[in-house]
Amino acid sequence: MAAASVGQDPDSGPDFGPESGSEFDRGSAVRERAAEPGVYDAELDPGWRIGAGVNGGLLLALAGRALSQRLAPHRDPFSISGYYLTASRPGPAVVRTEAVRIGRTLSTGSASLRQFDPRTGEEIERLRVLASYGDLTAAQEDVRTSAVPPEMPPPEQCIGAEHAPPEFMAQADLLQRLDLRLDPACVGWALGSPSGVGRIQGWLRLPDGREPDPLMLLLAVDALPPVTFDLGLFGWTPTIELTAHVRALPAPGWLRVTHATRNLANGFLEEDCEVWDSKDRLVAQSRQLAIVPR
Amino acid sequence: MAAASVGQDPDSGPDFGPESGSEFDRGSAVRERAAEPGVYDAELDPGWRIGAGVNGGLLLALAGRALSQRLAPHRDPFSISGYYLTASRPGPAVVRTEAVRIGRTLSTGSASLRQFDPRTGEEIERLRVLASYGDLTAAQEDVRTSAVPPEMPPPEQCIGAEHAPPEFMAQADLLQRLDLRLDPACVGWALGSPSGVGRIQGWLRLPDGREPDPLMLLLAVDALPPVTFDLGLFGWTPTIELTAHVRALPAPGWLRVTHATRNLANGFLEEDCEVWDSKDRLVAQSRQLAIVPR
Repeated sequence: MAAASVGQDPDSGPDFGPESGSEFDRGSAVRERAAEPGVYDAELDPGWRIGAGVNGGLLLALAGRALSQRLAPHRDPFSISGYYLTASRPGPAVVRTEAVRIGRTLSTGSASLRQFDPRTGEEIERLRVLASYGDLTAAQEDVRTSAVPPEMPPPEQCIGAEHAPPEFMAQADLLQRLDLRLDPACVGWALGSPSGVGRIQGWLRLPDGREPDPLMLLLAVDALPPVTFDLGLFGWTPTIELTAHVRALPAPGWLRVTHATRNLANGFLEEDCEVWDSKDRLVAQSRQLAIVPR
Repeated sequence: MAAASVGQDPDSGPDFGPESGSEFDRGSAVRERAAEPGVYDAELDPGWRIGAGVNGGLLLALAGRALSQRLAPHRDPFSISGYYLTASRPGPAVVRTEAVRIGRTLSTGSASLRQFDPRTGEEIERLRVLASYGDLTAAQEDVRTSAVPPEMPPPEQCIGAEHAPPEFMAQADLLQRLDLRLDPACVGWALGSPSGVGRIQGWLRLPDGREPDPLMLLLAVDALPPVTFDLGLFGWTPTIELTAHVRALPAPGWLRVTHATRNLANGFLEEDCEVWDSKDRLVAQSRQLAIVPR
């Protein structure tokens, strides 16, 4: 693993801020308004674009970061649901948070990510989030699992973004912010022969060496190309809703990410995602409901 | 199938109200306040208790019914997330709704189910819901699925609630409101030898002949005994969050419901649920994050 550590205190858990120098931390940074507690300003960076909009995982991480500050010391999203309302654009944004319930081991909050009408300045809601946060550094070690990590060739035998079709890369600035290596068994679509199975998987890390933490996992669950590519369905699959469970603090190093779908019906599909860390632990699970490309 | 139809107009889809005479419709009924649009009164019926609280699926159906009225003509929950805050008790409740975004094919809303402090009358929030609704009667028929229905013996060879341990039945009024027949392969726990696989499945219908519709599916995804029983872990598994996707209008008749878990970690487990209708279609999928029994 060539990635350099960004300095993580194992006692307090990761606590990356914009000062970490990482593009992910900068791209998901929020600043609380001094005069309005619970309201956070942000800037959506064009570098996280996918198509005309900003990547849904980055938006979830950004709103998730605001909630992490709002619900501290419950800083880690145990369960977080994002409902995507309108397409986000690069530019200023604001996150308005609500502490729904402050509990002893879990706290629940809501966040509304908004941008501004260019003519009137009026706020337009992009994403509504509901989430329960806790403290994963206090995690018990009682793991009992029948889930098995995905099998895939080592990263150096997988397919980097540099092999993606140029017309796809041109619309996916996001891919330059990720070190993503797709399993060759799942990239038939890039060569004109999708497998039809409905599965895409690969290795993921941040190219600047910023190690994974719970907020970065919110990016990871929506960072791969849509699983519909493996079904030969190209075009956009806008997310309606995505819920992620972060099950453990991820260990440093590569993540393995799998996306699968089983059921396209009524113009919608589900996309199930698993994220496994370098210690072979299932650290995040997510499911999204998305629109089937026409 | 002995269940009598309650009168469903196939053109407009099911539209069951409290007048249907069904215990489910009565138990999940809401009445909008004339002076406060978007605010709905309700009564939590002790017949839907499980342990000291009211069943989480019933609560989701009740809040979901309020949103169905609020977001009409988008009456069907395509995706709905419930975050459970405090345990509900039989008695009066109020659902305060917010229309987050009204769209052409989907509308998003939020609902807050509250009860009242017996001393002060102050509202105490039980459940916060975020959901996107559409119209499933307008569903396209383009189904492309690799999911296969669960195999189980016919209902008459399955295990009814009458065989459940009396100490369990005594705490589960809910079970008398359901016609639930569990696959004998998954009920070793009732005989002292849980399989350890982490799977429970069975047939489900409402005993009064009320046919399934999208709101009833919200009950169905949280109606079976906890999957942890199959792991030999008895006791409560309180739900932190449950998100359900309703993928199609269910056909009349028995539903098949499966619950599975793969990963217990950090004191939490996920429970994945599928609901299949009598036409072998996957009509609902859900996942919940719950607390592992001690």
